[in-house]
This record gives sequence, structure tokens and C-alpha cells, in this order.
Amino acid sequence: MTSSNKYSYKKLQDFCSTVFVKAGVMKEQADIVAASLVQADLRGVDSHGVVRTAIYLKRVEQKMINPAADIHIEKENESTALIDGGNHFGAVVGDKALKLAMEKAKTTGVGMVGVKNSNHFGTGAYYALEALKQDLGTIIMSNASQTMPPTGGVRPFIGTNPLAVGIPCGAYQPFLLDMATSVVARGKIIVAAQKGESIPQGWAIDKNGKPTTNAEEALEGSVLPLGGTKGYGISMFIDILSGVLTGAGFGKYVHNMYEDWEKPQNVGHFFITFDINKFIDIQEFKNRMDLYISDVKGEPRGEDVDEILIPGEIESRISEQRKKNGIILPLKVENELTEIGLKYGLSLKDALMKKVCKESEGV
Amino acid sequence: MTSSNKYSYKKLQDFCSTVFVKAGVMKEQADIVAASLVQADLRGVDSHGVVRTAIYLKRVEQKMINPAADIHIEKENESTALIDGGNHFGAVVGDKALKLAMEKAKTTGVGMVGVKNSNHFGTGAYYALEALKQDLGTIIMSNASQTMPPTGGVRPFIGTNPLAVGIPCGAYQPFLLDMATSVVARGKIIVAAQKGESIPQGWAIDKNGKPTTNAEEALEGSVLPLGGTKGYGISMFIDILSGVLTGAGFGKYVHNMYEDWEKPQNVGHFFITFDINKFIDIQEFKNRMDLYISDVKGEPRGEDVDEILIPGEIESRISEQRKKNGIILPLKVENELTEIGLKYGLSLKDALMKKVCKESEGV
Ligand SMILES: NC(=O)c1ccc[n+]([C@@H]2O[C@H](COP(=O)([O-])OP(=O)(O)OC[C@H]3O[C@@H](n4cnc5c(N)ncnc54)[C@H](O)[C@@H]3O)[C@@H](O)[C@H]2O)c1
Ligand SMILES: NC(=O)c1ccc[n+]([C@@H]2O[C@H](COP(=O)([O-])OP(=O)(O)OC[C@H]3O[C@@H](n4cnc5c(N)ncnc54)[C@H](O)[C@@H]3O)[C@@H](O)[C@H]2O)c1
Repeated sequence: MTSSNKYSYKKLQDFCSTVFVKAGVMKEQADIVAASLVQADLRGVDSHGVVRTAIYLKRVEQKMINPAADIHIEKENESTALIDGGNHFGAVVGDKALKLAMEKAKTTGVGMVGVKNSNHFGTGAYYALEALKQDLGTIIMSNASQTMPPTGGVRPFIGTNPLAVGIPCGAYQPFLLDMATSVVARGKIIVAAQKGESIPQGWAIDKNGKPTTNAEEALEGSVLPLGGTKGYGISMFIDILSGVLTGAGFGKYVHNMYEDWEKPQNVGHFFITFDINKFIDIQEFKNRMDLYISDVKGEPRGEDVDEILIPGEIESRISEQRKKNGIILPLKVENELTEIGLKYGLSLKDALMKKVCKESEGV
Repeated sequence: MTSSNKYSYKKLQDFCSTVFVKAGVMKEQADIVAASLVQADLRGVDSHGVVRTAIYLKRVEQKMINPAADIHIEKENESTALIDGGNHFGAVVGDKALKLAMEKAKTTGVGMVGVKNSNHFGTGAYYALEALKQDLGTIIMSNASQTMPPTGGVRPFIGTNPLAVGIPCGAYQPFLLDMATSVVARGKIIVAAQKGESIPQGWAIDKNGKPTTNAEEALEGSVLPLGGTKGYGISMFIDILSGVLTGAGFGKYVHNMYEDWEKPQNVGHFFITFDINKFIDIQEFKNRMDLYISDVKGEPRGEDVDEILIPGEIESRISEQRKKNGIILPLKVENELTEIGLKYGLSLKDALMKKVCKESEGV
């Protein structure tokens, strides 16, 4: 069930940021967290949008996130660094790690920055898009708490560890692959469960290791890795780079954001950025990307296919629409945010779109 | 159909190397190509083993590979380099690129080396295993000629572009994910076609875009990407890094090793190596990897599952066995190599195992 209200992304971002500030987060850092959440809503990745405000806030309130933490560089070399996030917000730690990786890329060609003692960092796309503003390429990873079984296993062992790759183009929108390493993001199963909908066969197994189409049962069981064993392997190497290599948690040592109220999550991230100019002139590269994309878009299509799409294209189109027409929230999320507003002395209504823009969403 | 002969991997390697030398390849370089092929057979990746000797040789004979090429660094920075392979053997160019990436990793923490004007480089594992000898982590990619459709397309556009990730462990064998980005490697469909066997549903579509279980039809059609759209995205970013970024071919500009006799392949590769010590003490890292692996191996298993495996484990066990007991070749490959031997004045029989080792294979 969605609300019929349309929210201005800018005002929704202000609302979330102000809430975080009132909960003790520095303004500049609250802005980063709010921007990363609202950007997900803009791009249609609703599972990682302002729906997460409540849980982030609760973790701050319960001292499971430390918004006053000192994020510091523990080890550094020309092209690498290890950052201790001090248990700050994932987006704040991630932002700092990304910036360091970007600086290094501009100097030596590559920046590779590992992060420990962090929290849920939202979407990988958030960081890739930051780097794309400076025409830098990125490979971004994070581990996450246990949701997927290893091949042959029956219960969650690895997370749906996301992988994002951002590459600039010329005339086209950037190539922006941003994906969970599960068949689908667990967030989608959460959304289905919230809506009381069933899920397709092949997405998940129940807690006894049996295939299920029931979203609630799936949440008690495991999401399956994409492409079977290969996805298990991909998710594992993300866990290794983000967790084993950095000193963060890995496997069962990454704590669940929703369920563990004893320990911080200790999520790890891994940021790789590279300067395209160090390989090939950026303008020539962009021309080559445009040729690549126009080639693939020109391919013969299946019967019911209108257009061949590029990773990131769907989200960039939705984003254009929602910037213009506003963001519609699930009722449950709207209610949650309204209550949070009440608690912190803010009105969610202030984030509504002005009437003049209130036409159709037309996504 | 397989032969009943058992070949010594060392002698088989000598045989292949000598053939390449006689075809005009420098000894040291012929050794690299032969080692990469025989290593694939040892590890049970038969589709990328000495079965490729004939086609490699034919491409040299037809001047589609230039074994006298000067492989040179075209652009270089502290942590990056772009190598022009001059159309030499993929394994020879790859070996040089990897070594450069390894040097850089030891200095700045990371080496990222792109390669253009190269050829089929065999398995990604070959390079990962080289780097593992020095405890370096790697992410290795290559593009390949068109075999998979984009999501929504009906004919091949991208290759089954392989991705390999190598990570050292302590007591355990290294983590070594090495995979085609297709549901299965096209080589497996070639093997099925050679054996006259059918293939499982979901592996491929025929030339009209319809699902097929006929291996011959699949070879005329397209292999499907792993995990649908996500695999399409992964294969694309590998093409972008290996091809668009390096100046190599990409999409339709990577020429088919078996079918195109007018132009060199112009394959591109992308090597990322990193020094674990720059993040965390290598011994501590290895202990953490061992804990990770023992944790996952200790997970509860499905009913018919004997053991939870780690990427690379199957191959490392097969390799131990085959080193001891010998390599058995498909009859067709044995005949091909025998003929090649005749042509170049060598006897394949010299590569047979000595009697004393000729017991059971027991893989
Ligand atoms: N922080 C965490 O712990 C965590 C964990 C898992 C996922 N996530 C995030 O969840 C989000 C959603 O992940 P997901 O896997 O559900 O995404 P998804 O399956 O919706 O999309 C995955 C990718 O495929 C592309 N895509 C989709 N359809 C396409 C088509 N027809 N043609 C070409 N490309 C197409 C998308 O643009 C996207 O890049 C991501 O932003 C991810 O970073 C975060
Ligand atoms: N040069 C090229 O153009 C090119 C193109 C495609 C593929 N290749 C090569 O082809 C080879 C075969 O690729 P593939 O995709 O068919 O390999 P595969 O499907 O046999 O194995 C993929 C990975 O999964 C792992 N694995 C398999 N079963 C497992 C299990 N039960 N538990 C845990 N891990 C398991 C393997 O160890 C391996 O790392 C690779 O060496 C690849 O580099 C090369």
C-alpha cells in the first residue's frame, strides 16, 4: 500500500538530515546519510531508501552506531589505505573512504581503500555516482550480515554482498551496475513481505532449506545467490575483500542491523577507483563507450522487447521522473517517518511537493 | 570418447612447448603457453587445456598470432600501465602484464594493468596462481569473442568474459574463483558437441533465440549469461575494462579465434593485483582466511551433500591426482596432437606416463 502523497526529494532529504542532526549527528554527516537514502528512492531502489531511516535512527539511539566516532586512517600507502570507521554510519565512513580512494587514483592511477568497523552503507551506486562526477571509474563492494547459504548449505552464511561498477560515458548516461549478489536483493523480499505478496520460485529457501514462494518464510530462511555456485563465489570474494582483508567482520561476524542489539555491525567495505586518463584519453574513452552502448542497443531484440537496456539506465530514468514529479512512499514508511517527525519536533508534511508539480508520476 | 593412455603432465608440457618452438615461438614463451594449457588439464578444466594446442598453432601458422611480436608498455604510472601485446599469444602477453602488475603492487600496494592487441589467454586461474606464489591477491579479467546475448537480445553480443579472483590462505588451499560469466563456459558446450551429448536446459539459446538442449545448435546460437541480467552486467563491465578502456576490441570488435582468419583477435585483458600486507599482516590475514573457510565448511549441509566446497578446491584436488596419476585425453585431442607431432617431427607417445605410475586415476 502506497500513500498518495508526493514528496519533494530535496525536502525529504532535509527532513531526514534534520532528524539525524537532532539525534546527535553532525550536520555535514547527516546530509551524507540523508542524501544516500533519498538518492535510492529517487532511483527507484526503494528497498534502500528512506525506509531505512527508522532503523538507522534506532541504532544510533541504542548506541549501536556512534555518530561522534573518529573515522581514521589506520594504514596507508601510495595506492592503498585501511580505514577504521569507528562504528560511524556506513555512508559517512564510505564517503570518506571513497574520497581517499579518489585522491589516490588521481595521483597513482588507482586507489584501493578497505574499511572496517562500519555499518550498512546503503547502495553501492551512491559512491559510484560521486566518483562519476569526476569521471573516475569505480568498483565498490561491501559485505552484509548473513542471508545466503553456501552451495550445499541450508542456512544463511554470507550476505547478499553488493557489487557496484561505475563507468563514465559521453552522450549516454554512465554505465552503473549496482547489484546484490543474490538472485534479488533481500530488501525486495522485505518489501514483498510488507505488502503481503508472494515471491517467485528460485529466489529463496525456507529455514529448513526447502524452496519457498512465501516472503515471510523466505525472510526466516535464506535468499539464494545469483547463478548458483558462481554467485556464492562472487559473494564470498566480496566478503573476503571487505571483511577478511580489512579486519571487519565476515561471515557470522557481521552483525545483523535489525536483530543484533548487543554489538555494532562491524561491516566492511572495499573501494577501488581508477583514473581512466591513465590508460586512455578520457574523451576517446567516452566515445568508445558511446559506440559500445549504441552497438548493444542496436542489437536485434526478442519478440516482446522494446529496448535493450544498459545497467543503470532504468534507475537514471526513474530518477529524472521522480526529481520532477516527487517520491511516493509506502504508507508504512510514511507513517513511520511521521512518527519520527513527531518525536523530533518536525513535520513530514513540510516535505510534500508544492501543488503545481503535483501532476502525474509517469515513471 | 577418451583414450586409455595416461600422459605425464611434465612431458605433455614439453611436447606442446617443443611444437610451439618449432612453429617459431621463443623457448621461454612457448613454455608459458604450454604451461598454461597443461595446467588447465591438470586442474580438470579440460576445455581450456591442450585441446587448444591445434587452434593456437593454426593461428600462428596463418599469421593471426605473431610470436615474434614486441610486447611493450604504452603508458605507465605508479600503479597503472597499458600494455600493447603486439598480437602475441595471450598467455605470453598476460604473463608480462601480470608481472608488471605484481611489481607495482609490491611498491604502491596495487597494480592495475590493462592489455590490448592480445589473444585468448587460457584460464584466469593461471595468472592468479602465479601471483599466489608471492602471496599477492588478484582480480583478473579478459574479454572474449561474442557468444552471449544482452538481456533482451537474441544473438551473441558479449563474450563469456572470464573473471578470476585469487586469495592466499594458510592451512587451506587458496581461494581461487575462476569462472566464465556464462551459466557455463562455452568450452563445455564444445566438449558436449564433440562427445555428441546434449546440454541442460537454461545453458543456451539457438540461433533464433529459442532455448535449446542440443549442443550443436547452442554453438550456432548463444550461451546465456549467469543469473540473467546481473551476469549480462558483469560480463559487460569486464568487456569495458578489458576492451573499451585498453584500446582492445570489445563487443563485435573482438574477433573469433576459430572463425576469423582475416584479422587478429584483438582481445583485451585487465589485471588487478594487490599486496595484502599493505592492509593487514599477511600471517594474520591467512589465519582469518582459515577461520573463514573452516566456518563455512562447518555449516549444516543439505541432505545429499558430503562437503561444502570453496572455489578452487575441486580443481586443486584434481590437480594433485592428475600430477600423480597422469592426464587422460579425449581421443579426438589425442589424435590431433599425434598428427601435430608427426608434422613437427615429434612423438606424442614420448609424453606417456612411465608404467610404474600407471595405476588408477582415482579422481
Ligand atoms: N548495503 C548492503 O548491504 C546492500 C546489500 C545488498 C544490496 N544492496 C543494494 O541493493 C540495491 C538493489 O540491488 P538489486 O540486485 O536488487 O538490483 P536490481 O536487480 O534491481 O538491479 C541490478 C542491476 O541490473 C541493472 N538492470 C536491471 N534490469 C536491467 C535490464 N533489463 N537491462 C540492463 N540492466 C538492468 C540495474 O540497472 C542494476 O545495475 C543495490 O543498490 C545494492 O547496492 C545493498
Ligand atoms: N580465455 C577466455 O576467453 C575464457 C572465457 C571463458 C572461460 N574461460 C575459463 O574457463 C574456465 C572454466 O570456467 P567455468 O565457468 O566453466 O568454471 P566452473 O563453472 O567449472 O567453475 C567456476 C568456479 O566455481 C567453483 N566451483 C565449482 N563448483 C563448486 C562448489 N560446489 N563449491 C564451491 N565452488 C565451486 C570452481 O572452483 C571455479 O572457481 C575458467 O578457467 C575460465 O577462466 C576462459
